[in-house]
Amino acid sequence: MSGPLRFEVTAIDPSGARTGVVTTRHGSFRTPAFMPVGTQGTVKAMTSAELVDLGAEIILGNAYHLWVRPGAERIARLGGLHRFMAWPASILTDSGGFQAMSLRELRTLDDAGVSFRSHLDGSPLFMSPEESIRIQRALGSDIMMVLDECPPLPAPREAVAAAVARTTRWAERCLFERREDDGALFGIVQGGTDEELRAASASAITALPFHGFALGGLSVGEGAAATWRTARLCAPMLPAERPRYLMGVGRPEDLVECVHSGIDMFDCVLPTRNARNGSLFTRSGSLSIKRAEYAEDASPIDPTCTCATCRTHSRAYLRHLYMSNEILGSRLNTLHNLHFVLKLMRDMRAAIEAGRLADFRSAYWAARQQEPPARA
Amino acid sequence: MSGPLRFEVTAIDPSGARTGVVTTRHGSFRTPAFMPVGTQGTVKAMTSAELVDLGAEIILGNAYHLWVRPGAERIARLGGLHRFMAWPASILTDSGGFQAMSLRELRTLDDAGVSFRSHLDGSPLFMSPEESIRIQRALGSDIMMVLDECPPLPAPREAVAAAVARTTRWAERCLFERREDDGALFGIVQGGTDEELRAASASAITALPFHGFALGGLSVGEGAAATWRTARLCAPMLPAERPRYLMGVGRPEDLVECVHSGIDMFDCVLPTRNARNGSLFTRSGSLSIKRAEYAEDASPIDPTCTCATCRTHSRAYLRHLYMSNEILGSRLNTLHNLHFVLKLMRDMRAAIEAGRLADFRSAYWAARQQEPPARA
Repeated sequence: MSGPLRFEVTAIDPSGARTGVVTTRHGSFRTPAFMPVGTQGTVKAMTSAELVDLGAEIILGNAYHLWVRPGAERIARLGGLHRFMAWPASILTDSGGFQAMSLRELRTLDDAGVSFRSHLDGSPLFMSPEESIRIQRALGSDIMMVLDECPPLPAPREAVAAAVARTTRWAERCLFERREDDGALFGIVQGGTDEELRAASASAITALPFHGFALGGLSVGEGAAATWRTARLCAPMLPAERPRYLMGVGRPEDLVECVHSGIDMFDCVLPTRNARNGSLFTRSGSLSIKRAEYAEDASPIDPTCTCATCRTHSRAYLRHLYMSNEILGSRLNTLHNLHFVLKLMRDMRAAIEAGRLADFRSAYWAARQQEPPARA
Repeated sequence: MSGPLRFEVTAIDPSGARTGVVTTRHGSFRTPAFMPVGTQGTVKAMTSAELVDLGAEIILGNAYHLWVRPGAERIARLGGLHRFMAWPASILTDSGGFQAMSLRELRTLDDAGVSFRSHLDGSPLFMSPEESIRIQRALGSDIMMVLDECPPLPAPREAVAAAVARTTRWAERCLFERREDDGALFGIVQGGTDEELRAASASAITALPFHGFALGGLSVGEGAAATWRTARLCAPMLPAERPRYLMGVGRPEDLVECVHSGIDMFDCVLPTRNARNGSLFTRSGSLSIKRAEYAEDASPIDPTCTCATCRTHSRAYLRHLYMSNEILGSRLNTLHNLHFVLKLMRDMRAAIEAGRLADFRSAYWAARQQEPPARA
């Protein structure tokens, strides 16, 4: 392989959705891909071996969280994040830009970078674009993300436009900081739900020599219909020969709609976080395991599911574990939800290969007893 | 098999310690045996499949906790505790007697039984000896325990003597309540650390036709030396042809000392509870994973350990998970501590078969750089 990332598209569906293979320094992953989120050096409640068994081929690590604890340089001294958490395949790291938004009570932001206060102990921290790359380098990331400014929505148009401009300036600095032997680096397109600003951002960012391109600043308050519409409008603004990554979006319905729009990579905490909160995916929609109706329900979460949880345990048992606040409940629920989304991605890759993604989408919404959303 | 329990002693060490096989309605387990504790229908943080892989052949369930939530009759309607938690092997259930002690702020006790208030919602509950057997029957227990009175130590001699007398009366009522097709039923010897009271209790209880005999009322405040001394004095008071079970005792050093005294079965929450609190067993003693000295320690918990945690992860990673309050930390630590005690039991069974338990005991204490405790 020449360079830190190769992307091969192996089939294109009539919808324009693609399937392919991305190869990094730690092996290959098939696209469209869902990346489970390992915020603090662990995908919550799961071992790395279980993630491999579930079919995860790439996970996401959080630069900000690992920088604050246990420290990026400490992880580097321990051999990097792959060795630290015993993960054998690819890791994409975010840059800290999202935390600059979500911890906004704790930060100030200017062109130089983001001044944080640690969410752990309030101590002052400063992350510049260059520092973000140094952190991701120390972690040993296979795919690094530029530091971006991600305004929560709704936001005034001038604020979104300013974030677009700053994101471009920071993207250039991140590229300049990247070294030849680092992992790949992806640029991020901002612009909220404004098509004109998105086009301007995409034009500026795709002019730079990134290994892939992400849509940032979505799923931050705009609502699912606006997320899907923006992804659909923006995917064609990104070069077809590079992976397209939609950041922070990954409920099953999001995955179905946005794969259909030509997105190749996704991450989201909701499959794992919802699992710990007892909200479990099924083909017909989500169920809340704490409901009294499941107290003596001997059936599995989803009778069509082949995961270890559904093959072994009843809703009644999972409800009991949830009500008793037992760790095993979080484990079994997380395993199920991750199996669900990873299998959904496998099924969509197969549908794209067969040129039948539209049928797959219709069947997905039919199982939920809903009409497919309009694609205006 | 005739009857619900068979016990075959296969080897006796010069110390008097025995190894053998107990067979219940759900298969066999080898003795001396450690039973991981599944308080609420789950050995905390572990799947049943993992427990099987670790070599657990019998686990303990808590009648009181399961009675309060989700309810014993509910578990019966769902097919019993084995099916509920997907555990394929033997289950011993305690009677609720220990909770009658440990929840003593919430109960009153007289000859009729124990009046509790639920630790969950304060609702009134009443457990008689007969009700305890009915609960354990509903759970589908392979080995039921009589309801006993277990006074916390230190206690006035008259209080201990009264508990001995009541325990005998309740034992007779439990036997009377037991049906032919129920699981086995074990009697419990009380008497604190008083040799005379223990002898009187053993004499009364072993005169009744139980399938096995337990020493209750230990590890309740008397200190390890007194626990070990009492177990050593009392084991010979129990018939050699029946399993001898020391209730609620199971740190590694307890297991070594009390197997040596002829005990066959143990349960204890400390291996699992300590694990969740970051206290991890090693051949040279326990270590507290939160200590700063482990922050960059790339070595495993115990270099001689073959468990999945030690084969895969560093102390530095486990410390990070502990400091970050990650579920995976509780999982990996629990797996290690349970592996440690279950392997200790396997090693002691092999030492007994070889007639070399005294050597094993010496080596155990030498690895901890301590003298073996005096056996006065």
